[in-house]
Amino acid sequence: MSKKLDEKFSKLDSSAQVLLKLRHTSEHVLHAAMQNLFPQLKKAMGPATDEGFYFDFDLDQKISEDLFPEIEKEMQKIINTKAKMVHENITPEAAKKLFSKNPYKLEWLSDIQKRGESVSIFRMIDPSGDEIDVDLCSGPHLDSVDQIKAFKLLTVAGAYWHGDEKNKMLTRIYGTCWPTQRELDEYLNRLEEAKRRDHRIIGKDLNLFVFSDLVGKGLPLLTSKGATIRRELERFVVDEELKRGYQHVVTPPLAKTELYKTSGHYPYYKDTMYPVMKVDEEELILRPMTCPHHFMLYKSSGHSYKELPIRMAELSPQFRYEKSGELTGLMRVRMFSLADAHIFATKDQAKQVISEVLDLIQFANEIFGMTKGEDYRYRLSLGDRKDDKKYFKDDAAWDLAEDVLREVLTERHEPFFEAPGEAAFYGPKIDVQVKKISGHEETAFTVQYDFVMPKRFDLKYTDNEGKEAQPIVIHRSSIGAFERTMAFLIEKYAGAFPTWLSPIQAIVIPISDKHLDYANGLYDQLKKQGIRVELNDKNEPLNARIRDAEMQKIPYILVVGDREAEQNTVSVRSRSQKGQNVVPVSEFVEKIKSEIFNKALA
Amino acid sequence: MSKKLDEKFSKLDSSAQVLLKLRHTSEHVLHAAMQNLFPQLKKAMGPATDEGFYFDFDLDQKISEDLFPEIEKEMQKIINTKAKMVHENITPEAAKKLFSKNPYKLEWLSDIQKRGESVSIFRMIDPSGDEIDVDLCSGPHLDSVDQIKAFKLLTVAGAYWHGDEKNKMLTRIYGTCWPTQRELDEYLNRLEEAKRRDHRIIGKDLNLFVFSDLVGKGLPLLTSKGATIRRELERFVVDEELKRGYQHVVTPPLAKTELYKTSGHYPYYKDTMYPVMKVDEEELILRPMTCPHHFMLYKSSGHSYKELPIRMAELSPQFRYEKSGELTGLMRVRMFSLADAHIFATKDQAKQVISEVLDLIQFANEIFGMTKGEDYRYRLSLGDRKDDKKYFKDDAAWDLAEDVLREVLTERHEPFFEAPGEAAFYGPKIDVQVKKISGHEETAFTVQYDFVMPKRFDLKYTDNEGKEAQPIVIHRSSIGAFERTMAFLIEKYAGAFPTWLSPIQAIVIPISDKHLDYANGLYDQLKKQGIRVELNDKNEPLNARIRDAEMQKIPYILVVGDREAEQNTVSVRSRSQKGQNVVPVSEFVEKIKSEIFNKALA
Repeated sequence: MSKKLDEKFSKLDSSAQVLLKLRHTSEHVLHAAMQNLFPQLKKAMGPATDEGFYFDFDLDQKISEDLFPEIEKEMQKIINTKAKMVHENITPEAAKKLFSKNPYKLEWLSDIQKRGESVSIFRMIDPSGDEIDVDLCSGPHLDSVDQIKAFKLLTVAGAYWHGDEKNKMLTRIYGTCWPTQRELDEYLNRLEEAKRRDHRIIGKDLNLFVFSDLVGKGLPLLTSKGATIRRELERFVVDEELKRGYQHVVTPPLAKTELYKTSGHYPYYKDTMYPVMKVDEEELILRPMTCPHHFMLYKSSGHSYKELPIRMAELSPQFRYEKSGELTGLMRVRMFSLADAHIFATKDQAKQVISEVLDLIQFANEIFGMTKGEDYRYRLSLGDRKDDKKYFKDDAAWDLAEDVLREVLTERHEPFFEAPGEAAFYGPKIDVQVKKISGHEETAFTVQYDFVMPKRFDLKYTDNEGKEAQPIVIHRSSIGAFERTMAFLIEKYAGAFPTWLSPIQAIVIPISDKHLDYANGLYDQLKKQGIRVELNDKNEPLNARIRDAEMQKIPYILVVGDREAEQNTVSVRSRSQKGQNVVPVSEFVEKIKSEIFNKALA
Repeated sequence: MSKKLDEKFSKLDSSAQVLLKLRHTSEHVLHAAMQNLFPQLKKAMGPATDEGFYFDFDLDQKISEDLFPEIEKEMQKIINTKAKMVHENITPEAAKKLFSKNPYKLEWLSDIQKRGESVSIFRMIDPSGDEIDVDLCSGPHLDSVDQIKAFKLLTVAGAYWHGDEKNKMLTRIYGTCWPTQRELDEYLNRLEEAKRRDHRIIGKDLNLFVFSDLVGKGLPLLTSKGATIRRELERFVVDEELKRGYQHVVTPPLAKTELYKTSGHYPYYKDTMYPVMKVDEEELILRPMTCPHHFMLYKSSGHSYKELPIRMAELSPQFRYEKSGELTGLMRVRMFSLADAHIFATKDQAKQVISEVLDLIQFANEIFGMTKGEDYRYRLSLGDRKDDKKYFKDDAAWDLAEDVLREVLTERHEPFFEAPGEAAFYGPKIDVQVKKISGHEETAFTVQYDFVMPKRFDLKYTDNEGKEAQPIVIHRSSIGAFERTMAFLIEKYAGAFPTWLSPIQAIVIPISDKHLDYANGLYDQLKKQGIRVELNDKNEPLNARIRDAEMQKIPYILVVGDREAEQNTVSVRSRSQKGQNVVPVSEFVEKIKSEIFNKALA
């Protein structure tokens, strides 16, 4: 194992280490099996991943998923041999002989040779001493292949060598492996569920957003329905933040390149920034973050300690260049809008301010129906005192900032773990780690402690003795980027949003044309109350119209016929309850209004 | 007068023609006076404008406004000569001799010579036959200078020759001239008032927005206070439009250049668009308008005639390159956000749809306190059947569209006038013409009838016979661009916004520390009711704190002392009424809430 990989591996907890070995060895079994079945195949590469493994290879034959049973059978045969995984270090020269017919391995070997390193290989040796397979590999691996108890091949796809579209397109097989069959089954169920909830599919089915070739990649267009969800989220964030003492501002989504050079972002972000635009004598660029804009606003007037903390927030459009292969629905886009804020505070206020930020994050998560410790937890991302290149050098300031964040998390009894070397270049941070349906954990957004930018931008306030002092800055989001949050919520609710977020909150369906007057009156009444209501008087059978409303996941279907018209009632089919319920119109109105007002979960 | 100028002149009504002659002749009197006072001066150019005239000249001496009385005296002397303005056409050769010492005139003359035209000059000849002045000029002019009865010099500024910063900086004197002294006085008063209300000054005084050299020119940053006004305006527009059947969408503020080539905007707008950004294989550009984005959304699904009209709206960020010399506070910026919409309708629906748009515009204007016919009126901007280069060729479609717009305006008895040759390239439009404080009329935004884009983008719907048909599109705004509307409202209200728009709606001022508890309670109570309230408990005299609140133009100043604390009342100083008024807290809360809810004018 290389030093870098070794370090990474040693950071994993023991169960994660076991999983990694299991999956990496499974990959070797896969490539050995493929080599047996397709002797002309050239192995390219194949790592373990967080959820399994994959194997890239060069083969002139198309591999379809229909072949998976056969390949899995061949894999099982190899597992049954109980072969050992044997590690060896050899010279590059010896390795070049060993892999002389494989251009991919030879390319790796040239790189290793340039670095003057020895070559790590793993041999798969069966109990009779025969070599089943040998591959360039840093490991680590299981001792023997028969420790693999539960694996499955998942999908096949194309993949460019080195991920570069200028290179040859290889074939990639994805698989997974778990310690037990039960865990494998659970994982496959989660995968199935994640597919069913895929926001790209639901987004299309419910007509929430579209993409357009003429507009460009990674630039979603929100339909009226998608935009409604977004507007509800935006107003929720703004209103809640205003209540909590934030000031909302509006700054332009572009600025002179110089601004990002001053902030120090430019060298870190320039590969993910859009190209510079020359306008007269100015060089403008779309912003990859909001911080320097807020610093400019802060600096536009003087500040006394009495004003601090100043909580400056914005629904901030930002632009990042993402590789086209990495663009994924609303989850990974080239332009997003962050519920962003920068809190200017004295050092003494830091703990209190961060604690208040966690209060807000937890409040929002509760509204979304997320349970702390189950659906999300925190990661304390720390700096690295030895890495002066990435991190601003000021050991004392790093120590202090990390202590503050750790103390807040500890004193609040928050569920968190520490991650050395994951800090931002300007300070440590608390990452909000959200568990996705697939079981995979992702950083949704962060709370960062910054002592570097205030220096770079020469931020100031007048302290209680009338002297000049420097504030610290807490960078934070409250619910993250609206695009990602929407993707996440679509998947969480599988499109059945709580009423307050539902694009259509209720639909009126008259049984026949006779009831159209009453239906229209009901529709008007609900609309006047600010409820997002529709009326379906299409010339279609009642059941078809009810089914259509169910497919649209509308929280309340209001069927009206003779009885309802006579008694001024409505027959309510609630998405969350079976059957139907006839209630006076006024009762239904009160119920749905209170549900919306309270942002109740469905 | 050249043919082009002649056409423009003939389009003016007679009083405007008189004003133009008056001002143009005044400019000649000014330059003659300057020539008398500074014989070494070189005249460059000097036109009449909508509000007066200006004169650009090359002189090595700095001219300050202190000299204006002396210059005006010299001008009056010339007026007193009763000199005639005599027109003459001469050959370019003769003209070159006449102006041989003036490089600016020689440059004009070369251009005229290239075009093979004769040269129009005006001589100023006094009754004794002496020539006071001669200048290159297309006219028209008054018959004699003594028809000038009321003029005034206003300001002096620098101006580049041809407006190009690569050229020499000249001196420019602005002046104005009116038929009578009374009209001049009125104009000067309006000018004074406009200065007092200048949104750039009030914006600074009330801390509504700032600019930053590091961010870039023409890119305002809205402070919390400015952003509050903007948010109120945005929510007002969105809520009102939703009520009126609009769907709000969110589309990206950039797209592939191809999109604007398809729409046909590119050739018309490319000089005012930002530079292209190359991202992978795509050429992206910041959008100068929203239409093609909305067309992409419309095209993303099929449409039946039953769905029409579809009213697609957006708070749409847009980017236009404006020359740095033309940037003016929030009025003229390089990025703005338009309350935009595109209504997809059948031809038959056009009249009804346009009428509904005018209803909305009038509703919004009423909310802002604008009286139709006084503060604003409409301009019907027509195409030009002879101009195939600018306008899409389809005479029948133009006739129809113009008739529809004219009929709507006529049937509604709207105050409007017609302006031939002012249409958009894709159809005629109704411009909302707003009168500024200075008396000057400006187009705030427009309602356009478009039959060209639906063709270009192949927009479709299925008609009531199941056949494919093409919708028309109405492009419209409801309140224009938020930046400009804010600038306009700041000037209209001179910063004293109606309560619903005021960044701070009420301020609590305790008479002394004794009353701090009661003041805090009152503050909390108002805040809980959603009122934007502040508390001023600074260690400053009561009067100073009241004065400060008045300077900030806060609608309600709530002073609390012993009596108020005892009786649970509040002493209210309303911005709109003299004196103060002691009322129970609950009564004040009801009053201010209803004022906010009703968006009452102050």
